[in-house]
Amino acid sequence: MSQPLRGIIPPLVSPLRDRDSLDVAGLERLVEHLIQGGVSGLFVLGTTGEGPSLSYRLRRELVERACKQAAGRVPVLVGITDTAFTESVNLARFSADAGATHVVLAPPYYFPAAPPEMLEYVQDLVSEMPLPLFLYNMPGLTKVSFEIDLVRRALDMPGVCGVKDSSCDMIYFHRLLEVARQREDWSVLVGPEELTAEAVLLGGHGGINGGANLHPKLYVEMYQAAAAQDLKRTRELHAQVMQLAGAIYTVGRHKSAIIKGIKCGLSLLGICEDHMAEPFHRFRDAEREIIRERLVTLGLLR
Amino acid sequence: MSQPLRGIIPPLVSPLRDRDSLDVAGLERLVEHLIQGGVSGLFVLGTTGEGPSLSYRLRRELVERACKQAAGRVPVLVGITDTAFTESVNLARFSADAGATHVVLAPPYYFPAAPPEMLEYVQDLVSEMPLPLFLYNMPGLTKVSFEIDLVRRALDMPGVCGVKDSSCDMIYFHRLLEVARQREDWSVLVGPEELTAEAVLLGGHGGINGGANLHPKLYVEMYQAAAAQDLKRTRELHAQVMQLAGAIYTVGRHKSAIIKGIKCGLSLLGICEDHMAEPFHRFRDAEREIIRERLVTLGLLR
Amino acid sequence: MSQPLRGIIPPLVSPLRDRDSLDVAGLERLVEHLIQGGVSGLFVLGTTGEGPSLSYRLRRELVERACKQAAGRVPVLVGITDTAFTESVNLARFSADAGATHVVLAPPYYFPAAPPEMLEYVQDLVSEMPLPLFLYNMPGLTKVSFEIDLVRRALDMPGVCGVKDSSCDMIYFHRLLEVARQREDWSVLVGPEELTAEAVLLGGHGGINGGANLHPKLYVEMYQAAAAQDLKRTRELHAQVMQLAGAIYTVGRHKSAIIKGIKCGLSLLGICEDHMAEPFHRFRDAEREIIRERLVTLGLLR
Amino acid sequence: MSQPLRGIIPPLVSPLRDRDSLDVAGLERLVEHLIQGGVSGLFVLGTTGEGPSLSYRLRRELVERACKQAAGRVPVLVGITDTAFTESVNLARFSADAGATHVVLAPPYYFPAAPPEMLEYVQDLVSEMPLPLFLYNMPGLTKVSFEIDLVRRALDMPGVCGVKDSSCDMIYFHRLLEVARQREDWSVLVGPEELTAEAVLLGGHGGINGGANLHPKLYVEMYQAAAAQDLKRTRELHAQVMQLAGAIYTVGRHKSAIIKGIKCGLSLLGICEDHMAEPFHRFRDAEREIIRERLVTLGLLR
Repeated sequence: MSQPLRGIIPPLVSPLRDRDSLDVAGLERLVEHLIQGGVSGLFVLGTTGEGPSLSYRLRRELVERACKQAAGRVPVLVGITDTAFTESVNLARFSADAGATHVVLAPPYYFPAAPPEMLEYVQDLVSEMPLPLFLYNMPGLTKVSFEIDLVRRALDMPGVCGVKDSSCDMIYFHRLLEVARQREDWSVLVGPEELTAEAVLLGGHGGINGGANLHPKLYVEMYQAAAAQDLKRTRELHAQVMQLAGAIYTVGRHKSAIIKGIKCGLSLLGICEDHMAEPFHRFRDAEREIIRERLVTLGLLR
Repeated sequence: MSQPLRGIIPPLVSPLRDRDSLDVAGLERLVEHLIQGGVSGLFVLGTTGEGPSLSYRLRRELVERACKQAAGRVPVLVGITDTAFTESVNLARFSADAGATHVVLAPPYYFPAAPPEMLEYVQDLVSEMPLPLFLYNMPGLTKVSFEIDLVRRALDMPGVCGVKDSSCDMIYFHRLLEVARQREDWSVLVGPEELTAEAVLLGGHGGINGGANLHPKLYVEMYQAAAAQDLKRTRELHAQVMQLAGAIYTVGRHKSAIIKGIKCGLSLLGICEDHMAEPFHRFRDAEREIIRERLVTLGLLR
Repeated sequence: MSQPLRGIIPPLVSPLRDRDSLDVAGLERLVEHLIQGGVSGLFVLGTTGEGPSLSYRLRRELVERACKQAAGRVPVLVGITDTAFTESVNLARFSADAGATHVVLAPPYYFPAAPPEMLEYVQDLVSEMPLPLFLYNMPGLTKVSFEIDLVRRALDMPGVCGVKDSSCDMIYFHRLLEVARQREDWSVLVGPEELTAEAVLLGGHGGINGGANLHPKLYVEMYQAAAAQDLKRTRELHAQVMQLAGAIYTVGRHKSAIIKGIKCGLSLLGICEDHMAEPFHRFRDAEREIIRERLVTLGLLR
Repeated sequence: MSQPLRGIIPPLVSPLRDRDSLDVAGLERLVEHLIQGGVSGLFVLGTTGEGPSLSYRLRRELVERACKQAAGRVPVLVGITDTAFTESVNLARFSADAGATHVVLAPPYYFPAAPPEMLEYVQDLVSEMPLPLFLYNMPGLTKVSFEIDLVRRALDMPGVCGVKDSSCDMIYFHRLLEVARQREDWSVLVGPEELTAEAVLLGGHGGINGGANLHPKLYVEMYQAAAAQDLKRTRELHAQVMQLAGAIYTVGRHKSAIIKGIKCGLSLLGICEDHMAEPFHRFRDAEREIIRERLVTLGLLR
């Protein structure tokens, strides 16, 4: 686990049976589906995993079972983002004990911290971490970014091992790569799957892509083509990823359509249940039928 | 406690000794300071109380001790806003057992719910509540508003008893009043203290105003003047509230300056400590000195 | 005209016959309708007047005819906001020659100027003005505000005579009043009509309210009640204004619904045509029918 | 001129001697500098050209002189974006008469049009155009985007020839490419230069990049490497572009720093004056000295 992460690390959906119970068998199938798809790691309790919407009890159960199922075959990253410092530390410690390999931290998402406040926050938190930490830039949901200057300062913080950027801002991403060039052991990963091809072609190390839950092989192959600088093949696979995203994420009218679409698809594929944590609810039959047809068109379902 | 709330209900700061310990004596002094100042209730774990930044353990301790100290003399409202449904329910039940009288709910603040999703969320949550619930509109920090249509639907939800509006949007506030006119037992309260005068002059029922931590009597008198429709006196007291807010909330450069200023002032007044929960830190000596001078100018400190 | 403006100054809609021709008779009727309604001035080429959407030729024609029709009975204010400095100056000079009494300036609305840039801009522009100038704060459409510090600096700029605030932010408005208290010859006016009551009750000088196009008398009476500190009457009239705004501005689905609603109403009242400047188009028959019914309900149409 | 545009088309700065006079010799030198640098066209009156900040007289003078100097050697594109429909049409006609080859239209930037309103607007405007039109997506300054659905509809509008996207949103850009694949005669160009490499690697047709004013050859070579799918060379040149942008655009504190930096650099290179149109002003000596040093470091100045 001491090598830097490279490749596709799916942000796992959190399979639920109802409001506060895990779909245990579904989680196990999902982990197997992803590892067999060739992924380089598993990221639990991220945005796609509805992490902040789960009770603390459920979060811990999910971490424990995911680590157990992964059984050391691939690294397990755990999202520890929280508005309460102590709770982030608590979950990080629990995750280390459960066998996770990395933690992932987005800014606290109630109060927006100003840049100097954020720097102090990260410094204080990193010093309490039992595992290597990824900074997770997600301004669309946390209101604020980790500024490039903070990332530059983080180069000297023991325990920080890279950045996941879900800002959709590729200028920011290229600046991250400039900064991270000084640390070969860092990983700079991109969030939205539509941007993984260019991110890797221009020096990034992989993607934390929601759609990889559904079709891990496609994302892994796209990563490999880009990492091998096979531009022609990368473009073909990027077109397929664009098609999958365009098909599955546009069924609902709200922003929640992405996670709902992935979970609905996984349910149709027989992998796990599609119960959503509040404030969301799973797709009703009409939307489910559209997802079914699109999975057929995409060749993922017969 | 069955009467609708009217008047000033301060959102208590959370007195801390360090990252995860309550300044118990400070909390007790604060509660006494406020009750002696004539307030109509106490609101704990709101935004001014840095609720989302506290560990769950600390939140429960604070609820318990605040209720104990209030000892039934005034209602105690508890903020139960959370990104996880089950945790909101857990804290509401704990609060009811501890002697709180109301709970206060802002939208979950990680994923922004679209209006129909929010309606379902509120319906589901209200049905689990052991205490009357206030809707707390705070779009600046939760990204989304409770739309007026949702509030209209909430008129028929047993257990909803009013709205606290911190949007700073007085058009929205007037629409709330139109809706709430049908329910004499509801309370429509305003957040920012600079707006309490006009809110009450035009039909609102009071304010949940951070500055009342420092000087409860001023806010209570302003409320009483406005409720009595004494316009001349209301304007005088409103000018004083504007002066206090302008003096104390503008010392720091960041948005956190408001809470930092209030806590620093309370520390200078000898009421409680000014430790801040992460991601913030208390004012350093330079800012503290400015706050001291301004409290002197305001006549709150010699 | 040397007295400070007090009262209701409607932002006139711009009556159009088609894309680039004025409905001259409609404009004349509108001016008469407003003056007979007791307004304290006329504001042309504001937001409600779709000023930025009109060709320069048409803007000048409208200024000229409005001034001619007003014939000195009330002040005429002209919006000179432009992204090009020289064009603002040109229109100000034209307006002075045509008999206008004041000009009104919002920030240039393509490039957002930072506070020090804005200060230089206002200083440079004011020095070229042939008429007293109002600062027009409209961040929703110009992206940036005139900061309170800039307004404070403007106290010493010869030629600035007040502020119109359409930010909907009453805290900002109260800070404006604090600043303007030093200049009895200034006017601090509020934009959205839903806020005029409280603005005047707490020290403001009047309103530039779109709905006054339709029913000037209502707005004038509300202003007079508030200025006379008759709180009971102010509340009654404020409720009527809320009702009118709630009825007429909510028919279309887009933000343009306000101007479309006012123009449609004026057309139904027989005052002027309702052609809209691009990028908007007048209401179709279905929406027009709803507006008709609501005007009947409001007692403005039989 | 009937071939689709491919390559680098710099958005020319507008060389000014003072508020309302063109630096004619500077413009001529700039045009020669760019054509000798190998650019595929010239775009005047864009954002970098401070188009909306210039008087109408000056805009026409600039169009006329740029076309005369270009003398048919490369296409000349003219920004006709305006808040007034008729003025866009007027400038388009003037440009056609002056010898321009294309016009470029961003959404009207005062009133934000909703999608159906924008569609009508574009349809109406396109039908009046004497030249092929590019849609220019620039939501950061115009508040609204041309939605992908509108672009899809524009495939069937005679006279539309492509899109320039300055949204910085590469997911949007990839969706544009999917749509435009049906029209080989369209050009899909990207705004920010930091994104041109990936845009072209994945199927885009070129860039409208501000930095190309300073160093056209670098941008043209980067385009050519990317168009030739030479990934290694593209990465080297992209790194140089990132370096130039990082050096020149970060001197001022405000958003205006980009245009100020480019103009200041051009002045130091002896190409044209650096007077800025209001609301901006040129860099003072301190910033100019920093730009000078950075140009030396970049090898552009000795």
